[in-house]
Amino acid sequence: MSHPRTVAVIVGSLRKDSVTRKVAKALEALTPGLQFTEIEIGDLQHFNQDLEAAPTAEWTAFRNRIKAFDAVLFVTPEYNRSVPGVLKNAIDVGSRPYGASVWNGKPGAVISVSPGGIGGFGANHHLRQSLVFLNVPILTNEAYIGGAFSLFGENGELINEGTAEFLRAFGQAFSDWIDTILAGKAA
Amino acid sequence: MSHPRTVAVIVGSLRKDSVTRKVAKALEALTPGLQFTEIEIGDLQHFNQDLEAAPTAEWTAFRNRIKAFDAVLFVTPEYNRSVPGVLKNAIDVGSRPYGASVWNGKPGAVISVSPGGIGGFGANHHLRQSLVFLNVPILTNEAYIGGAFSLFGENGELINEGTAEFLRAFGQAFSDWIDTILAGKAA
Amino acid sequence: MSHPRTVAVIVGSLRKDSVTRKVAKALEALTPGLQFTEIEIGDLQHFNQDLEAAPTAEWTAFRNRIKAFDAVLFVTPEYNRSVPGVLKNAIDVGSRPYGASVWNGKPGAVISVSPGGIGGFGANHHLRQSLVFLNVPILTNEAYIGGAFSLFGENGELINEGTAEFLRAFGQAFSDWIDTILAGKAA
Amino acid sequence: MSHPRTVAVIVGSLRKDSVTRKVAKALEALTPGLQFTEIEIGDLQHFNQDLEAAPTAEWTAFRNRIKAFDAVLFVTPEYNRSVPGVLKNAIDVGSRPYGASVWNGKPGAVISVSPGGIGGFGANHHLRQSLVFLNVPILTNEAYIGGAFSLFGENGELINEGTAEFLRAFGQAFSDWIDTILAGKAA
Repeated sequence: MSHPRTVAVIVGSLRKDSVTRKVAKALEALTPGLQFTEIEIGDLQHFNQDLEAAPTAEWTAFRNRIKAFDAVLFVTPEYNRSVPGVLKNAIDVGSRPYGASVWNGKPGAVISVSPGGIGGFGANHHLRQSLVFLNVPILTNEAYIGGAFSLFGENGELINEGTAEFLRAFGQAFSDWIDTILAGKAA
Repeated sequence: MSHPRTVAVIVGSLRKDSVTRKVAKALEALTPGLQFTEIEIGDLQHFNQDLEAAPTAEWTAFRNRIKAFDAVLFVTPEYNRSVPGVLKNAIDVGSRPYGASVWNGKPGAVISVSPGGIGGFGANHHLRQSLVFLNVPILTNEAYIGGAFSLFGENGELINEGTAEFLRAFGQAFSDWIDTILAGKAA
Repeated sequence: MSHPRTVAVIVGSLRKDSVTRKVAKALEALTPGLQFTEIEIGDLQHFNQDLEAAPTAEWTAFRNRIKAFDAVLFVTPEYNRSVPGVLKNAIDVGSRPYGASVWNGKPGAVISVSPGGIGGFGANHHLRQSLVFLNVPILTNEAYIGGAFSLFGENGELINEGTAEFLRAFGQAFSDWIDTILAGKAA
Repeated sequence: MSHPRTVAVIVGSLRKDSVTRKVAKALEALTPGLQFTEIEIGDLQHFNQDLEAAPTAEWTAFRNRIKAFDAVLFVTPEYNRSVPGVLKNAIDVGSRPYGASVWNGKPGAVISVSPGGIGGFGANHHLRQSLVFLNVPILTNEAYIGGAFSLFGENGELINEGTAEFLRAFGQAFSDWIDTILAGKAA
């Protein structure tokens, strides 16, 4: 097997100082065995089937980028008890045209993040439902990062040791999961 | 009470000849007691909290338009077992800024549409979960319009009598629901 | 209208000292305008369609009891991210035989309770999905009672003032909701 | 690896002539590489935490039986847009006491069955949400068996060739999935 495994990271918030992105960065720092790359989704035009014959340059670039990775990680806030529209749109764009989904078969993981206690449970499981359809085998480990604003210092560094331990274990489990799924595909 | 009640219609597909829009149009024709107006969502930029202090003209126009209606109707296809990103984005835009959601308290209804048999069940219930949070009392009547491509003629007219009866009853139930909820708010 | 409205309370835990039941009791104490009665569900045999022609005495008694109430309240723990089997069974028993569901049209509300932070979000929304099908118009107000073990004193009395305020407002909203829905049915 | 893999089959309907059970039997006949055993769930008392210190004989027998299998298959009807209470109860019983869940880590698969078109979508995904929490890696392949009453002959034999092909492929995918997950655990 080639190592390190490469992981496309999709962050569901466009906000520059997004706490969701900080969680993604913290996971990256705590998981040296995986190589993470955040993929921009804010420039993707809304999916419209009328444009499928002549896809936009942004759609094509996004699809081509995702294809090259071993795995995908979704780190998302919750908007109105579900996935942000912008993140769902990226999933929709990547899933088309029919038969050419870039998500197909890639091992994945989901982390949801919120300022409150519930930790984005609604977004987390809505995302999982879509990923079942897209044939993305998702790590079962649940990650609901609540109270997120209190976890980081002034420079965006993770200052909560419990969360650090949690993310370290999550990253290790994800790494093992990628190995398991890719070994199964190769068999 | 003022009549007819006005209903903002949000169609989850941007496709020009969308079968989802045909369902919305058929419901409108079969429900003379309500006044439906489709509200464009394809021009709404992705929600980004960094832009809240200076919202785009499209966001502001959308929010102002929705506010004026008595009720909201969502007619949606299913993309990847959930709500299309573009529709979820419209919901997100309308829900912000915090405390000023345009959806708050408006009676609503949901119709999901698909070419296959399942009729968009996944999109329908994901949408309902968001609408609970947004304090939109939703008509309980379930509407899963499956096999949708076979329901319309060459000019987009509904040719399936069973579906026509179903939509007529749905429109009547929605009209009664709007009256019930608005009467309760006035009490 | 006849007052006070009567509410059948279904508690999803069979445990004698259940914290979920304490939440139900606290709501009752804080909502003098409604008359709550807990309905036992632990004696209901598992639903089995083969027994429909000769329903058990417990099934029949349960169905007859529920029918007499104006409204229904579900107060539930979360088991494995969903509704406890015993509670779902009570819903199933009450929904049968086909065409004679005792839930049909009754206004309802849902409260989920958990020791942890997430407050039973998964159970809450799974229950709502069933109640849509059963034509139970559900109060939109969300009630996720987390950290539940710390909310009560030695004698089961509610000692958290924030929760008391929350439940008082919830009970008032439920009371208004019952009036709204029943007025709509009578119109 | 030891072969054939053994699979515990949980059928969500207690009905003797359940069409759900016929689907399970058809899958078994079409998947010679796996050894299926249906495990009775109708005799399990409702879960009650007060009984945990002295579990019933049925609970203990059920837990011990499940433990011995390599994998688990859930074949379920949909009751009121969710999992039947009796099936959810079996999951709850198997998950306890805390830390000793018999489901933990076993590869699994879900099939939902209904007479109508929607194929039990609601039950299927509610079940998946519970199985995420229970750390059961679930085959992504979706199986919504709709129109189920028309698929079987007088002696319960599968007479629909399309369904047979579908189930054959599903069984093969499940077999591969079990190998993948168990190989990953062994690594």
